[in-house]
Amino acid sequence: MSKNLTTRSEDYSKWYNELVVKADLAENSGVRGCMVIKPYGYAIWEKMQAELDRKFKETGHQNAYFPLFVPKSMFEAEEKNAEGFAKECAIVTHYRLKNDPDKPGKLMVDPNAKLEEELIVRPTSEAIIWSTYKGWVQSYRDLPLLINQWANVVRWEMRTRLFLRTAEFLWQEGHTAHATKSEAIEESEKMMNVYAEFAEGFMAIPVVKGIKTETERFAGAEETYCIEALMQDGKALQAGTSHFLGQNFAKAFDVKFANAEGKQEYVWGTSWGVSTRLMGALVMTHSDDKGLVLPPNLAPIQVVIVPIHKTDEQLAEISVVVNELVSQLQKLNIAVKYDDRTTQKPGFKFNEYELKGVPIRIAVGPKDLENGTFEIARRDTLTKETVSKDGIVAYVSGLLSQIQVDLYNKALDYRNSHITEVNSFDEFKDVLENKGGFVSAHWDGTAATEEKIKDLTKATIRCIPLDGVKEAGTCVFTGDSSSRRVLFAKAY
Amino acid sequence: MSKNLTTRSEDYSKWYNELVVKADLAENSGVRGCMVIKPYGYAIWEKMQAELDRKFKETGHQNAYFPLFVPKSMFEAEEKNAEGFAKECAIVTHYRLKNDPDKPGKLMVDPNAKLEEELIVRPTSEAIIWSTYKGWVQSYRDLPLLINQWANVVRWEMRTRLFLRTAEFLWQEGHTAHATKSEAIEESEKMMNVYAEFAEGFMAIPVVKGIKTETERFAGAEETYCIEALMQDGKALQAGTSHFLGQNFAKAFDVKFANAEGKQEYVWGTSWGVSTRLMGALVMTHSDDKGLVLPPNLAPIQVVIVPIHKTDEQLAEISVVVNELVSQLQKLNIAVKYDDRTTQKPGFKFNEYELKGVPIRIAVGPKDLENGTFEIARRDTLTKETVSKDGIVAYVSGLLSQIQVDLYNKALDYRNSHITEVNSFDEFKDVLENKGGFVSAHWDGTAATEEKIKDLTKATIRCIPLDGVKEAGTCVFTGDSSSRRVLFAKAY
Repeated sequence: MSKNLTTRSEDYSKWYNELVVKADLAENSGVRGCMVIKPYGYAIWEKMQAELDRKFKETGHQNAYFPLFVPKSMFEAEEKNAEGFAKECAIVTHYRLKNDPDKPGKLMVDPNAKLEEELIVRPTSEAIIWSTYKGWVQSYRDLPLLINQWANVVRWEMRTRLFLRTAEFLWQEGHTAHATKSEAIEESEKMMNVYAEFAEGFMAIPVVKGIKTETERFAGAEETYCIEALMQDGKALQAGTSHFLGQNFAKAFDVKFANAEGKQEYVWGTSWGVSTRLMGALVMTHSDDKGLVLPPNLAPIQVVIVPIHKTDEQLAEISVVVNELVSQLQKLNIAVKYDDRTTQKPGFKFNEYELKGVPIRIAVGPKDLENGTFEIARRDTLTKETVSKDGIVAYVSGLLSQIQVDLYNKALDYRNSHITEVNSFDEFKDVLENKGGFVSAHWDGTAATEEKIKDLTKATIRCIPLDGVKEAGTCVFTGDSSSRRVLFAKAY
Repeated sequence: MSKNLTTRSEDYSKWYNELVVKADLAENSGVRGCMVIKPYGYAIWEKMQAELDRKFKETGHQNAYFPLFVPKSMFEAEEKNAEGFAKECAIVTHYRLKNDPDKPGKLMVDPNAKLEEELIVRPTSEAIIWSTYKGWVQSYRDLPLLINQWANVVRWEMRTRLFLRTAEFLWQEGHTAHATKSEAIEESEKMMNVYAEFAEGFMAIPVVKGIKTETERFAGAEETYCIEALMQDGKALQAGTSHFLGQNFAKAFDVKFANAEGKQEYVWGTSWGVSTRLMGALVMTHSDDKGLVLPPNLAPIQVVIVPIHKTDEQLAEISVVVNELVSQLQKLNIAVKYDDRTTQKPGFKFNEYELKGVPIRIAVGPKDLENGTFEIARRDTLTKETVSKDGIVAYVSGLLSQIQVDLYNKALDYRNSHITEVNSFDEFKDVLENKGGFVSAHWDGTAATEEKIKDLTKATIRCIPLDGVKEAGTCVFTGDSSSRRVLFAKAY
């Protein structure tokens, strides 16, 4: 099974594509660019959803649901946003099929069922939501609106890859409305921080918090905050964005409120989202040549127990001990699976759970029964040890926490060792080519330079880090003056 | 607030439409036939989702996600299903907008971005899922597949009503594949039972379990099991369906497996779903002229506490007592809200929470502080009583359970008193016209008779009840012989 997996050093991209399919996370569908998220992959996404949803509610947000379709006239109301998404949207033009008179048993679009106005399948929901907010906001007392939606969206991407870029994907999109600019900015920053805590604390993925340059900003936003992660191949991945929308959508959809003095003002907005793309980040942050490596927080199966036996009697004896362990682990809400299938050999099972990234594997054989021990294998380090059955439950529970921390630290070490400061364009290209990762460089602040660098190296400015310090310098490309470093990288 | 609500006796339909909007459950959107589910309504739907999801997992199902779009050729593969949905589907024909040369600032569909094959926005997912299952099933060891999906679907209905019939709605759809016919039938029946337990035990909505006639059967199914509820106006509402698909989709998508003897066989299938339509059933089963009545299981706020005070000092004293009560109730996972807004009078708040269906309202004034009491009002019965603060927590907790049970029994009494056996067509029409509800009548078993009765009375056969007994009789319309009664009703 895992022996068939291309290794990362052979071909990282192929390794990723194979792993996603072989580990049963997702597969391509019969619909161009759309994926099927398989039960094992979806179980991981559900854990991410549950944790994010908890964090959103904890910060005062409520869920709601808005239409899938956006009428064209509504879609184009905020011009920058419309322009940003116009080239990649799925458009509904008809509402009925009829029998094809020329092809018995086949259907055709009924030309008499053309919509008066075309409907865009939402690529993002600012337009439909702000057109709704107009009816919800009259006075400052109606603000803030703190709303999130879990939904599917469609962007007609030409080149797609499972999780990383698909025509349809699942996400959450927060859309908030505020009485003041500062409150909206605070909200945008708060949600960037929620995402960062989620990525680091729950997914064990270290991220850099920053703001996007104008070129990379969300269409229709005044400022885009982001969290940027680094994959094992040295390429960056945008893991979440939070936008301060200014009054752009309020003006486009005429959303005003009476302030405390009774004066009409436009509302200030934010929007923020993370998507199933995070599944790709998860795979490419932790996994190895044997398969997935899942942080315990995200593992549908946290502990798997495999009996090692030759006879049915041995299996029966092992099962008595294991069933006791299973029920003790379940009491601690540990997701444990006892795989007592007799149709497969232990070696086969070991490979399968390695491929699927189960954090802890426990093996029990007749020797272990005699000695009162279990063999415990860690997926992340591929190490084994023999542990006495006394205190095994506390040991396993502690080990799960330890693995979660170790995975984060390992990824953090990798990330930190792949932020390289450069002071010349030769150095810049050299690091990009031979080492990868984030290149920290001075930049003159112009979109023109950003574009030239991208053309020459494929690297883009991933963000202007929020924790960056003021530092006088000269642009690595033009030599013009600069006051702070930004992070460049090739990116997914 | 509630005084503006049309009463049920004045106009039931208007009452429903107004209530859904005024209680902040949902509203119409700027997109034809599509609704916005507002936070309060969505919070109720989330509770329904959580409980259903738990029940699905408990019965061995896993969640997954399949594409929103179905290519036309895939859609039409199972002919009956395709025919059943062809007249009401949204069709994507293009994938790009461009600037309209004739209208500056406006966009138009780019004629150069026409899809080679049209995509149908899923009205249901049998086609896309069975085309996927083909790749998942080789041997009997791969079966059963027990999969559920939470998703949005689109059916281009011409006349829509919030929750009851909308162009886009949210639902779950289970799709299972089995090695044997009997196992698939067992699964269909099991899920009908899961739905019935959910409707009755969680939503306090009594249902009749039965099977549909051929006319009312799901397009592409061999048998449709259903649960039918009865609304307060005497009209029935189909609350959930579970379909035994036979081998229809397996044959259409060539899904075969090698049985234990190595022989190739077609797989047997089921599908089953409930939708946001259940929100409509919830409203129309329990609510009254003052607004929503929510069963405690579904109430986003189960207990609201309103202070009755004249001075700030009184409010401060009341708050000390209330905050203590709030924290005690929260320890029991009771969703409690303390509404200490000073911008609104108690009477205003009372109306608001009545409109929103909060099951228990507690009022506390200075007199209560002196006497060590609380005034407790039940939303369902609109009764009040004064309760000593000793043991108040257990009292409130017990009362929530009692309200849940009482609501079910009240709805059950209504439903049971509205199943009327008739033995002539005059009686049939009389009951339908003057009493409403289910009419239990003999029917000759033909679609022709079913249709004539529908044309004459608008009543359809809601189901052939599973608990019906064999009973010789004659069709109420044709006088032909019949062996059991079926339930007719006008329906949503």
